[in-house]
Amino acid sequence: MRSLIDITDLTVEETEELLNTASDIIENPEKYSEACKGKKLATLFFEPSARSRLSFEAAMIELGGSVIGVSSAENCSASKGESVADTAKVLSCYADIIAMRHPKEGAPLVAALNASIPVINAGDGGHKHPTQTLADLLTIKREKGRLNNLTVGFCGDLKYGRTVHSLIAALSRYTGIKLVLISPTELKIPTYVKKDFIERCNMEYVETTDLEGSLGSLDVLYMTRIQQERFSDRAEYERLKDVYILTEEKMKKAKSDMIVMHPLPRVNEISVGVDNDSRACYFKQVYNGKIMRMALILKLLKEAEDKAPYKAEGNKYEGYRCVNPRCITSVEQELEHRFAPSKNGGEVLRCIYCDKKAVKKD
Amino acid sequence: MRSLIDITDLTVEETEELLNTASDIIENPEKYSEACKGKKLATLFFEPSARSRLSFEAAMIELGGSVIGVSSAENCSASKGESVADTAKVLSCYADIIAMRHPKEGAPLVAALNASIPVINAGDGGHKHPTQTLADLLTIKREKGRLNNLTVGFCGDLKYGRTVHSLIAALSRYTGIKLVLISPTELKIPTYVKKDFIERCNMEYVETTDLEGSLGSLDVLYMTRIQQERFSDRAEYERLKDVYILTEEKMKKAKSDMIVMHPLPRVNEISVGVDNDSRACYFKQVYNGKIMRMALILKLLKEAEDKAPYKAEGNKYEGYRCVNPRCITSVEQELEHRFAPSKNGGEVLRCIYCDKKAVKKD
Amino acid sequence: MRSLIDITDLTVEETEELLNTASDIIENPEKYSEACKGKKLATLFFEPSARSRLSFEAAMIELGGSVIGVSSAENCSASKGESVADTAKVLSCYADIIAMRHPKEGAPLVAALNASIPVINAGDGGHKHPTQTLADLLTIKREKGRLNNLTVGFCGDLKYGRTVHSLIAALSRYTGIKLVLISPTELKIPTYVKKDFIERCNMEYVETTDLEGSLGSLDVLYMTRIQQERFSDRAEYERLKDVYILTEEKMKKAKSDMIVMHPLPRVNEISVGVDNDSRACYFKQVYNGKIMRMALILKLLKEAEDKAPYKAEGNKYEGYRCVNPRCITSVEQELEHRFAPSKNGGEVLRCIYCDKKAVKKD
Repeated sequence: MRSLIDITDLTVEETEELLNTASDIIENPEKYSEACKGKKLATLFFEPSARSRLSFEAAMIELGGSVIGVSSAENCSASKGESVADTAKVLSCYADIIAMRHPKEGAPLVAALNASIPVINAGDGGHKHPTQTLADLLTIKREKGRLNNLTVGFCGDLKYGRTVHSLIAALSRYTGIKLVLISPTELKIPTYVKKDFIERCNMEYVETTDLEGSLGSLDVLYMTRIQQERFSDRAEYERLKDVYILTEEKMKKAKSDMIVMHPLPRVNEISVGVDNDSRACYFKQVYNGKIMRMALILKLLKEAEDKAPYKAEGNKYEGYRCVNPRCITSVEQELEHRFAPSKNGGEVLRCIYCDKKAVKKD
Repeated sequence: MRSLIDITDLTVEETEELLNTASDIIENPEKYSEACKGKKLATLFFEPSARSRLSFEAAMIELGGSVIGVSSAENCSASKGESVADTAKVLSCYADIIAMRHPKEGAPLVAALNASIPVINAGDGGHKHPTQTLADLLTIKREKGRLNNLTVGFCGDLKYGRTVHSLIAALSRYTGIKLVLISPTELKIPTYVKKDFIERCNMEYVETTDLEGSLGSLDVLYMTRIQQERFSDRAEYERLKDVYILTEEKMKKAKSDMIVMHPLPRVNEISVGVDNDSRACYFKQVYNGKIMRMALILKLLKEAEDKAPYKAEGNKYEGYRCVNPRCITSVEQELEHRFAPSKNGGEVLRCIYCDKKAVKKD
Repeated sequence: MRSLIDITDLTVEETEELLNTASDIIENPEKYSEACKGKKLATLFFEPSARSRLSFEAAMIELGGSVIGVSSAENCSASKGESVADTAKVLSCYADIIAMRHPKEGAPLVAALNASIPVINAGDGGHKHPTQTLADLLTIKREKGRLNNLTVGFCGDLKYGRTVHSLIAALSRYTGIKLVLISPTELKIPTYVKKDFIERCNMEYVETTDLEGSLGSLDVLYMTRIQQERFSDRAEYERLKDVYILTEEKMKKAKSDMIVMHPLPRVNEISVGVDNDSRACYFKQVYNGKIMRMALILKLLKEAEDKAPYKAEGNKYEGYRCVNPRCITSVEQELEHRFAPSKNGGEVLRCIYCDKKAVKKD
């Protein structure tokens, strides 16, 4: 493994190893202050995300390395139509590791398949964002002391929230996890997440629209934002939005050791008053995200020494194509469409870049 | 004191200490080349200002530290509605000190009140820009040998020029300063600057529209630009603009040891021909700005070790609010309006963020 | 010589010295890893070019130096009308060397004439881009073992391609170079390139529209892109574009040791299938570009120690002016127009900034 595209690219053992390295970094930062001396991280952000970018940059600098980078504005205007593959090959001449955010699903995978250095997926459209999940896992581990035997509530937009899907995928590999999926009916968790992770791994779960009534049972509450544009009916949005705002009042119903998480940025889905509650852990997540990125960069640079190219499963299936307009295959004409069978064991073929079902050509 | 929001946050003694450190940096740069090793400056520029940003970055790098940053373009498009308070908390996880420029008045104060690391105001709208004033003070000190007993002319736009107001505030604490305020009638110094600083400190001053006639008396001439958009009457602008352009011809009327200053960028208010005059000090100001930012970063990082939170005076006054559309309170809904009595000893309540008068609610 | 504006600013001996330094850097990178410790490169990109900027940044970091910089987006919005001369003077207070890209021809020369530190032209409009040429020379030297006695084919847009003109200028100083100039009639090499370099240096050359038929004779093939917007007749473009695409099929007609070069980004003028051919050297050019920039930075910083100002030939000629709308003189009102006689020995006066012919005022 030389790149991180999806959280499940890491085995449970490798994840454990990263969590242990992270703890060691927190306790002995000086041990790592020159660990990446002479190494360069390239931050390739083709979509704006100052927070993620700064987290990667801070991580590399705290390891004694350097950063070169591209932020979105420059690229939007500069775009000369270069392929992601060529960009990855060029950056391989300048840096030792790439952190890439891209508006198209699967673009970081294309980069990983073409670069001669490790690539970290720093978010590909609404698809995946594995380093956020690493931050979430470290936060749960440090605050609760374990990653198994937990009742975890996810609240808000469970339909489009990639951080929710990714954390559920990660938790599906631990035992004794019970999920409480709290959302308006319009924003329920998608079927494929249920099938591929929750049901395939026999996780216990309940679906509910009731935040207040669920609070008392939770060890972890993972909040996300409900965006107005997700609702076709504005009145419905107005009726619902306050129900899913976490307030000091609602916090009284939660366990005294429940932790509150949020991937940030937060708008108003958690009242500012909750920030002073010792159970509020969302700014700790930010810190933990930097630490996990340090652990990840260390691991990938170490494994890069073997020079073996990154490989992905999947093949060309004659007669099939991907028609997802958000997939990188939709914009790069020379990119071969590749598919692999679905993880839930069914016979469905999925695009290796965006995970959408393959479509048979006429 | 752990943040610098307004030039008067620094006592005269502290300012003196910074000036002395600056002199030592100029004479012994190698002594400071690793003074901030392992420390990170975050440059948060929510409004473009390449010059100021590069000055901060160069300063931190010359101290052996590192820089992470956000420039305006990225944020404009990225804006996901995060509050300044949250941004400050997040950045506190990544960096050791923040330099912040923001289009809204008072935003850096909000950041300072929420960050757990020092914040430097690198310009908040047309409000304050204290590190420019530090550059100005070092330039006067080094070129004239003193900060008292000087006749200082300010020329141009004295109404909107924040660098002018800030330097007057700083000089008001020294003795023997005589001000010559040279501007068109439309752009005279505002009443509150006169009351709060010039008159409260019993500074000698004259107001005039005549640059040429004033030149002979000055030890220091501080030029600023007159922008056409400040005039409602275009003919008036056309009539006046050349009067306030400093030329080689006019320089003949000035003392042989008068110094010419300008906060830059200059458009045409100082002829290029003046650049070769040894009295022209505006590029020295640029250099001095970098040095004073080095001294300031050193001081703030040292004082940050005590971990005490930054505090600002002011209270919530029931029934009062700030209605300044350029104030940070106008855009951040959850930010409590806070007020403090005016510095000139009157009973006027002023917003702690933007210094505008509090308004009684109906 | 303290700045690099045009490739011919370097003598053949100096170029040789840079090529030798580059080879040494490739073989002994650790020898150079702290060569620029404590030095700062300012990347001033007033036009977007992430690739060039990252190459300069990577180069400086691999020399142990630091980088501060401005990218285009920021400047477009920030523009306060500061002259290039002032910008150069300001940056001289912050950095030790400048790499500047600017949309106007001659802007880096203006910067060099005003800065007190070395300036590298990183591209000025469609005019010059000398560090790309250094990358090209190193690639030819390393792959072919020599810079003389070569048959070099240039294919595509030879009219507007600044990299083509610049490499021809550089090669004109070596012996035994034969040029094969392959392009549609609309995009033939300009007359001044022929006169000033090819004919003045008695280089052997042929002009042809036939890529396929020329391939067998070439030691080096330099590909460039044909842009649709260069054609007034769309049908003509459609008819021609495939003829100038290099494919695996066409590569069969080339010598087994011919090398393929391209300044990148490539769109489709070289098929992706060619990438796996061992004769494809365009990604090696990227790597070589970084190495040559390292060699150049080292050389310029060393020569900067003498503090002598950069000088350019040329004088004010009464009655002449430059009317090129892409020249820096077209936007900077206070910049004196200066001219020098053409290099081909004729009596034509050319603007020292953009090389266009001087025009007699009425």
